[in-house]
Amino acid sequence: MLIAVLGTGSVGQAIAARTAKLGHQVTIGTRDVTATRAGAYAAWAAEHPEVGLATMAVAAADAELVVNATSGTGSLPALTAAGAANLSDKVLLDIANPLDFGAGFPPSLTVDDTESLAERIQREFPRAKVVKSLNTLTAELMVRPRQLADGDHSVFVSGDDAEAKRIVTDLLVSFGHTDVIDLGDLSTARGTEMLMPLWLRLYGRLDTAIFNLKVVR
Amino acid sequence: MLIAVLGTGSVGQAIAARTAKLGHQVTIGTRDVTATRAGAYAAWAAEHPEVGLATMAVAAADAELVVNATSGTGSLPALTAAGAANLSDKVLLDIANPLDFGAGFPPSLTVDDTESLAERIQREFPRAKVVKSLNTLTAELMVRPRQLADGDHSVFVSGDDAEAKRIVTDLLVSFGHTDVIDLGDLSTARGTEMLMPLWLRLYGRLDTAIFNLKVVR
Repeated sequence: MLIAVLGTGSVGQAIAARTAKLGHQVTIGTRDVTATRAGAYAAWAAEHPEVGLATMAVAAADAELVVNATSGTGSLPALTAAGAANLSDKVLLDIANPLDFGAGFPPSLTVDDTESLAERIQREFPRAKVVKSLNTLTAELMVRPRQLADGDHSVFVSGDDAEAKRIVTDLLVSFGHTDVIDLGDLSTARGTEMLMPLWLRLYGRLDTAIFNLKVVR
Repeated sequence: MLIAVLGTGSVGQAIAARTAKLGHQVTIGTRDVTATRAGAYAAWAAEHPEVGLATMAVAAADAELVVNATSGTGSLPALTAAGAANLSDKVLLDIANPLDFGAGFPPSLTVDDTESLAERIQREFPRAKVVKSLNTLTAELMVRPRQLADGDHSVFVSGDDAEAKRIVTDLLVSFGHTDVIDLGDLSTARGTEMLMPLWLRLYGRLDTAIFNLKVVR
């Protein structure tokens, strides 16, 4: 697949490297290509020459699958920069969590309970096929789940488009995920986004981000 | 221990029956003893003659451990009826979730993100030693966790008093819990209360309430 990964941080890098390794053609989208090339991203880019770098719009234009790997507060600006036309009729895998670190730790949520960031994105870009997933675990585990308990833990998908969820599910399985739970429509993303407060406390308690939840049933 | 279980619903019944079976002296607290005796509770009570029934205040007065097994919206009224003096210096195990079913399913939360029901209770009853726990799983699994995967799943405790958390943890272990995770102070209850939206969607998806989360690490 032609994949655009919006966001140059740890999540973007993990998704880009892994999908490129799996044979996809991957371009990372950034707001300012020159600034990104001059920054900390350069060292990572040198080790991943197979991953392209372009503006949000250029990266999204050719993509079949667009991944939102930006921060919660940066998501709508990044997707707006990518352009509604470049997102139309495409699968938009949304990994962002609506965290607000403005008042320090623990962060609060910018949206919750009766809405989710994923639904806001869907409303703003009605022709994109938004699928929420991977937002409940750390970047390294998103793409290499087998490193923990041989993958014996769970990941969730939420979305209104069944075919888009199938495409994302196939991608997750190719990463090594063994238990992909389809929660239902996109409003179920409220549940996974609201998992963050527990995740962050567990992170503080366990002294590692290499943990995940398994739905035992 | 002398245990008061506030609430006559499925959670109250499960906790009362199990703790009585384990040798504790248990009284269920209700708002109106006569009305409760005349209602659906009667059938259960006939099978559990070892469990007492009294007003909230009478049940709490002699108890060493008080369990809040009421609904989220009923919690503060029930604890007020129990009486601040009857809760002072006692362990108050809070199992309630702040769910509001006023607008149907899925329910919204009456408090979340920057506060929790557990913290509200603690603020209202500053001399009680509030410990949040068991609110992340169904009543039958709270008290008999071994019926699922031989107990290979997790439960959380949150609270400001270390000794109170130890007493609750011992009780959970006596129920059969094998992985009791101390998340930290009572503000960490925000995380477990905010798990409800995900729990409810999983419940809808899995067609059973006999499931639980395991923190794989």
